[in-house]
Amino acid sequence: MSALPMTASAAGDAAEPQAALRARLFEAKLLYPLGVTGLYGYSATYQSILDAVDAMVTRWGASLDAERIYFPPVIARSTFDHTNYLQSFPHLMGSVHIFTGDDREHRALLGRLEAGQDWPALLEPAEVVLSSATCHSLYPLVTGTLPAHGRYYAVRGTCFRHEPSVDPTRMQSFGMHEVVFLGEPADAQAHRDVGLAHGLELLSALGLVMEAVPANDPFFGRLGTALAVGQLEESLKMEGVTTIGRGTPPTAIMSANCHRDHFGRPFAITTADGAVAHSSCVAFGVDRIAIALLQAHGLVPERWPADVIGRLWP
Amino acid sequence: MSALPMTASAAGDAAEPQAALRARLFEAKLLYPLGVTGLYGYSATYQSILDAVDAMVTRWGASLDAERIYFPPVIARSTFDHTNYLQSFPHLMGSVHIFTGDDREHRALLGRLEAGQDWPALLEPAEVVLSSATCHSLYPLVTGTLPAHGRYYAVRGTCFRHEPSVDPTRMQSFGMHEVVFLGEPADAQAHRDVGLAHGLELLSALGLVMEAVPANDPFFGRLGTALAVGQLEESLKMEGVTTIGRGTPPTAIMSANCHRDHFGRPFAITTADGAVAHSSCVAFGVDRIAIALLQAHGLVPERWPADVIGRLWP
Repeated sequence: MSALPMTASAAGDAAEPQAALRARLFEAKLLYPLGVTGLYGYSATYQSILDAVDAMVTRWGASLDAERIYFPPVIARSTFDHTNYLQSFPHLMGSVHIFTGDDREHRALLGRLEAGQDWPALLEPAEVVLSSATCHSLYPLVTGTLPAHGRYYAVRGTCFRHEPSVDPTRMQSFGMHEVVFLGEPADAQAHRDVGLAHGLELLSALGLVMEAVPANDPFFGRLGTALAVGQLEESLKMEGVTTIGRGTPPTAIMSANCHRDHFGRPFAITTADGAVAHSSCVAFGVDRIAIALLQAHGLVPERWPADVIGRLWP
Repeated sequence: MSALPMTASAAGDAAEPQAALRARLFEAKLLYPLGVTGLYGYSATYQSILDAVDAMVTRWGASLDAERIYFPPVIARSTFDHTNYLQSFPHLMGSVHIFTGDDREHRALLGRLEAGQDWPALLEPAEVVLSSATCHSLYPLVTGTLPAHGRYYAVRGTCFRHEPSVDPTRMQSFGMHEVVFLGEPADAQAHRDVGLAHGLELLSALGLVMEAVPANDPFFGRLGTALAVGQLEESLKMEGVTTIGRGTPPTAIMSANCHRDHFGRPFAITTADGAVAHSSCVAFGVDRIAIALLQAHGLVPERWPADVIGRLWP
């Protein structure tokens, strides 16, 4: 095995065990293929794992007195436009388009549908896009002045990222549960660091072999190369990774991110003494954690190690 | 009070108590406004009501030996194109569009964003659209031959309908939990009828004053007028409605639908003896039920009548 950074071709080779894992999840009827690569239906058993992971994150949030908010899968376009996501990850986002025409235009729409032509070209952008990260929906709710010592939130939502893949951990639609802090810069940094350690502990206690690594986000294009270098140099983002199946590259199943004033500034969030608030989040990829657990402990949760069951279903 | 059918102006007047209810839900921090009319974040308390309603539907599904499947908020465009939704409700659907360009096109995209211009015009249709009805995702999974006596499914998902409204029961993104049957025509009809009665019973037992009425779907345009007349004449769809707030028109919080071969035919689903399968579903509008309960019993679930609490959190 080479110690060199993994090349594209090595990553390509890794698709085989990932496709095999996906096939096993289909066969066990834990996931159902929905006709688009990376899009799945979930069985009751799979959903029960998601619920248990969510409850674990909720318990941590409760210990921080975090306010819980659940968000829909779509987000206001006006909010999205302030997140800079389109700068960094245009290739992953999804915009919602709607039909605003009259009877005559409806006939044209159906004519295109029946002829197998591009009917979506006749649509107009809606006021919403698909959510790319759950915490994006939070910031406009927090516009204004924070209490002294800042505030924690635990936010749960379903995100969309357009990255069709046979790797079942790389879903196009997936759950994200984040513990977010907003407040003083030092406290935001501390939440990132303490939260990273705590998240790794929680996941290690579920029998997953975790490692913290600097993030390796798939920033887009030439502008993205500069952004990626900056992110690494400033250690703004750390990921908790685990190996899901022999011979596969490590997969990020959680991340811990310093946003600095990236959200506080555009969303006009200030600390109690009037400075621009900093924020940080610890994000759990709920579906990726579920897949990692199924791979590590087998496809029948009832037969998982007793201590893992005890932690997930206390 | 006039006995005439409600006019547009009477419906307009009804917006006032609905807007007032929405304001109370915001004030109680049960719902959070997300900057787009009809789009909300949900508190932990609100989510706990959704979960309890879901569990109630799940218990009914279990009594029918229904297979539970959870679906993501997006659906394959190829599936959507077979549902006829674009024919009937083009104004409610949402199509997902993505960026597929290169570095140069990314600069053009960001140029438009910064100039406040129409950047979504540079996007291309993705392989997915937002789900309009949860059971749509099920049918391609069932392509093939059903077992003798057909089969039940309990399916849960988040749907999108573009109908901005101050009425909090008319959300753009909302939960739908359906008990679906596929099999012989007579059995499908029976599920619709028995399921309608059972659904009304379940909701009445939660202290909601329910009434069954023929459906009044907002079919689009001139083609839609004919479809609506056909739907009514053939009694294909019934709704379980309740009045949410004095002076408001009744709101459908569940529906029971005979699809005949509307899905069996395009998705090639056949009964054990080789005929085209019929289907029917009993659909619970989980968010509308939650809002109806909050309006009927007050904004603090801990103070709801003991028998309602006992049924929701047994």
